[in-house]
Amino acid sequence: MTQEIADEAARLTVGILGGTGDQGRGLGLRLAAAGNRVIIGSRQSGRAADAAASIGSASLVTGATNHEVARDADLVIAAVPWEGHADLLAQLTGPLEGKIVVDCVNPMAFDSHGAYPVPVPEGSAAQQAAAVLPGSTVVGAFHHLSATLLLDPEVTDLGQDVMVLGDNRHATDLVQALAGRIPGVRGVYAGRLRNCGQVEALTCNLVSVNRRYKAHAGLRVTDI
Amino acid sequence: MTQEIADEAARLTVGILGGTGDQGRGLGLRLAAAGNRVIIGSRQSGRAADAAASIGSASLVTGATNHEVARDADLVIAAVPWEGHADLLAQLTGPLEGKIVVDCVNPMAFDSHGAYPVPVPEGSAAQQAAAVLPGSTVVGAFHHLSATLLLDPEVTDLGQDVMVLGDNRHATDLVQALAGRIPGVRGVYAGRLRNCGQVEALTCNLVSVNRRYKAHAGLRVTDI
Repeated sequence: MTQEIADEAARLTVGILGGTGDQGRGLGLRLAAAGNRVIIGSRQSGRAADAAASIGSASLVTGATNHEVARDADLVIAAVPWEGHADLLAQLTGPLEGKIVVDCVNPMAFDSHGAYPVPVPEGSAAQQAAAVLPGSTVVGAFHHLSATLLLDPEVTDLGQDVMVLGDNRHATDLVQALAGRIPGVRGVYAGRLRNCGQVEALTCNLVSVNRRYKAHAGLRVTDI
Repeated sequence: MTQEIADEAARLTVGILGGTGDQGRGLGLRLAAAGNRVIIGSRQSGRAADAAASIGSASLVTGATNHEVARDADLVIAAVPWEGHADLLAQLTGPLEGKIVVDCVNPMAFDSHGAYPVPVPEGSAAQQAAAVLPGSTVVGAFHHLSATLLLDPEVTDLGQDVMVLGDNRHATDLVQALAGRIPGVRGVYAGRLRNCGQVEALTCNLVSVNRRYKAHAGLRVTDI
């Protein structure tokens, strides 16, 4: 990673759609702690403001409607529930035009045997985002980071890698650099968007690991 | 893992269908080095004998036809090409009855952009094996171990985890123990067979990592 990309990542104002959920709040917390400006988004600006306040760092973290987040942020993370994923993004095609959209959504469902992947017609949530947002540059990342660990102030080193997928080299480089701003995290390029489905679905396996080993499992890529 | 399971894994005669390929030879080499008896299988017994001889340890490694392997081994690893996977297993339903069959097949294809997963009607190669072999206990494992590293005598520590998937606890415990016999490898339970598709497909992502970083990437599961 070049210093130039690291500097660019440091300057980003990061918007988080669906930022009131645990994953969105956890990412917002860690990125703000690293020094990024963060705008937490929600359908209701009041809920977004509450979530922003719960993260602290009032000078760095603010709340806004999802539409304002899409308009005002430099880079936007979609941390919304799988249900409604396409609908929400479709409402934001205008403000997201020309921006990098990082999709961390895991299409999955649960039954008595645990989690299982939900088939996605486009192949993955990230590819669905790319189909809905033809004017944006979609990157898949942050699928496997445990919200529990992200939100735990005693966890000072996440100790895992973030797989970053996309078809635009500058965008994946930038998201790798952004991931690397979270302590103990390394952003690893892991392929084109067409290979994002299995990365999303692998979250089901980590759920299985967590159940069996009473853990908050993540992944490291070896030999790099 | 109990000592009982470790002892049971140590006593296994492991058959490897399609054992003349790099993945099969690599697994055979490492398991024989750990002290397991190994039978390398091929359609032609002559090719199997040659592959067995190339591994060395003549007292531990022998060659045989795939049919003989299925009949004589305690546990069978299917390391065959995706093309012909179902057909080969369908010919062995009789001798594989009642046995554990470990599927390490990754259904994928390549084009100018690299590797991509091939859709499998059953959901995964392992689920296809289970459908074809209703009398066997199918486990998915060994998908991500690099054949290059397995076959490299200078690599004394593989330094990665093997995700083990299946619906039968004794079978997954045993395959975890078997994986753990390879130096530096830990067998990690990673879910039921229905969650094997993304583990197989993730090999495409490791191919992307290998291209980008000039590596032989594998995975470690963190926090366990």
